[in-house]
Amino acid sequence: MAFYALIMAGGVGTRLWPLSRRDRPKQALKLVGDRTMFEHAIDRIAPIFQPEEIFVVTGAEHVGSLAAQAPELPLENYIVEPEGRGTAPAIGLGALHLLRNDPDAVMAVLTADHFITDVPQFRQVLTAAAEVAEDGHLVTLGIKPSSPSTGYGYIKQGESLAEVDGFTAFRAERFTEKPSAETAVHMVESGEYSWNSGMFIWRVDRIMEEFERQMDEFYTQLAEVQATLGTPGYKPTLDRVWPQVTKQTIDYGVMEGAADVAVIPVDIGWSDVGSWASLLELLPADEDGNTVVGPHVGIDTHGTLVFNRDGKRLVATIGVQDLIIVDTEDALLVCPKEREQEVREMVQLLRSEERNGYL
Amino acid sequence: MAFYALIMAGGVGTRLWPLSRRDRPKQALKLVGDRTMFEHAIDRIAPIFQPEEIFVVTGAEHVGSLAAQAPELPLENYIVEPEGRGTAPAIGLGALHLLRNDPDAVMAVLTADHFITDVPQFRQVLTAAAEVAEDGHLVTLGIKPSSPSTGYGYIKQGESLAEVDGFTAFRAERFTEKPSAETAVHMVESGEYSWNSGMFIWRVDRIMEEFERQMDEFYTQLAEVQATLGTPGYKPTLDRVWPQVTKQTIDYGVMEGAADVAVIPVDIGWSDVGSWASLLELLPADEDGNTVVGPHVGIDTHGTLVFNRDGKRLVATIGVQDLIIVDTEDALLVCPKEREQEVREMVQLLRSEERNGYL
Repeated sequence: MAFYALIMAGGVGTRLWPLSRRDRPKQALKLVGDRTMFEHAIDRIAPIFQPEEIFVVTGAEHVGSLAAQAPELPLENYIVEPEGRGTAPAIGLGALHLLRNDPDAVMAVLTADHFITDVPQFRQVLTAAAEVAEDGHLVTLGIKPSSPSTGYGYIKQGESLAEVDGFTAFRAERFTEKPSAETAVHMVESGEYSWNSGMFIWRVDRIMEEFERQMDEFYTQLAEVQATLGTPGYKPTLDRVWPQVTKQTIDYGVMEGAADVAVIPVDIGWSDVGSWASLLELLPADEDGNTVVGPHVGIDTHGTLVFNRDGKRLVATIGVQDLIIVDTEDALLVCPKEREQEVREMVQLLRSEERNGYL
Repeated sequence: MAFYALIMAGGVGTRLWPLSRRDRPKQALKLVGDRTMFEHAIDRIAPIFQPEEIFVVTGAEHVGSLAAQAPELPLENYIVEPEGRGTAPAIGLGALHLLRNDPDAVMAVLTADHFITDVPQFRQVLTAAAEVAEDGHLVTLGIKPSSPSTGYGYIKQGESLAEVDGFTAFRAERFTEKPSAETAVHMVESGEYSWNSGMFIWRVDRIMEEFERQMDEFYTQLAEVQATLGTPGYKPTLDRVWPQVTKQTIDYGVMEGAADVAVIPVDIGWSDVGSWASLLELLPADEDGNTVVGPHVGIDTHGTLVFNRDGKRLVATIGVQDLIIVDTEDALLVCPKEREQEVREMVQLLRSEERNGYL
């Protein structure tokens, strides 16, 4: 079986501002340890994929930075979108390239901006999932919920479809987008739901079938690009077609209506590290409940994240509780934990004020 | 009448950390407008004193910085203490130098780290106070209290001693050090009390008399130094004697027990700018009650001081109330307004941890 990884590395990670920027996206950040998120993503799969089996979908503005982080990948494995159109088109474009390599390929759609603590188990489940996918199932990795989060999509497990290497693949009965708090509690208590990790394993021909069936306009557009693959017409065609592609996520566009979806629930210490509070959960706290990266002196300071990785400044706090303080070379954020979702609004505000240097 | 100014410029202003440092004391800071506190102090009195009539008491480590700020003062007018021993010895040393210049001199003891908004009235009261002082009174400038602050000393006004240019000099009946909140309320409501501004006007021979009478050990030490004035023995003598001088404030050491003290109450917009919250009161607030110096973007931010004068970083705040945020090149402070007095403890903590670069 030919098995490929397609790493999605197109986002910016707005909610991690001021650390994340247009030209310093989340996947290029050293949020956990001394490796960037993209380096972690490559490290995780390096033992099970050869460099030439790893593909990356991203934007032109990120290729240089990503290639510098993973020089072992062939440059031609970076698949460049002229502009981001959501996860469905990104996966579709990646699938085209893999299809050209190998029509029978199985592909793992992976992310460059998530963190996983149990990497050995992650590798095992990828290999197991590939076996399940060979039978034609669209496999999604489900994450065993650690809390009734309303920030994730949920997948309901149905009957068991297969057992491979100790992992069970269940029929995915239903996708529920970000639920209400009450619904989330019920779902988690039932034990029948997993979080949608955004990681998928499937045969390339199967996902193309689904694009054809469920996203026919996109499929036609994809076919137009496909006809030019490996020719000088490829880039002009992509540049012309892509802006016309309707933005769509793989969940809405394909998974919710797909035939034969399987979910393999795993407990691999997955975190989407989507925001400062989620990073807080990932990093170890000291005895005062503070999570500190960089020089800090606190008096009566509790439950606070001080993220100051470049260490150029001492952060001194007095009488501070549940605060997020992120210090970077040119911008500083101070925000209570409970309002961390509004970091996105801050970035919008800066954009509307055309303070482009901070974006 | 020979009238001299003696500016006390020896302190550091610990509670204004991280802006204030050992080598960047409060008087060298641009807290209000584009002039340093010392420049403000010189500007205020420049129309009534010639440069050679202005003397400055400070530490050796500050002379260079102060001289750069006020190059018009003769260098020999900087009177250098080997180490700070409190305001009484500083004033005593200054008095020695003035006495040598002119035994009949009247001196105004002024501060380099206070701010005054009504400068014309300040100049008028200085001139009027000098007239009152000529008669032998030890004149202190009293500040009309704007609140029942427990952070200042209070002076009780007795009978009227003199009227000069519309200012009334009252007999100072009693000095009360930082009172309880209840006492402060009573004192302010009575209308008979002024804050002790730490600014004094007196004949040099009169203050020497008081040193002789009330601080006889210090007076003997001072006489030892006096004998060497203008000789090569001056500095070695001062260096030997000064460390033996008992630390003492002019209030405890002299004023509380002095004969013939007068107070002239004035309302000159005086502020000691002793801490971040007091600076907050001095600077104009925007419609959200925020006081901002430097680049700032806020979402739902109220009553907050953002002091970021070097403007090298954007300070972004979300959902923040009554916070003090001070950003400097190498250190950042985040502290609720109500705990600003603990900035002093932060500096002590840094000292105890020998983080000398931040002191």
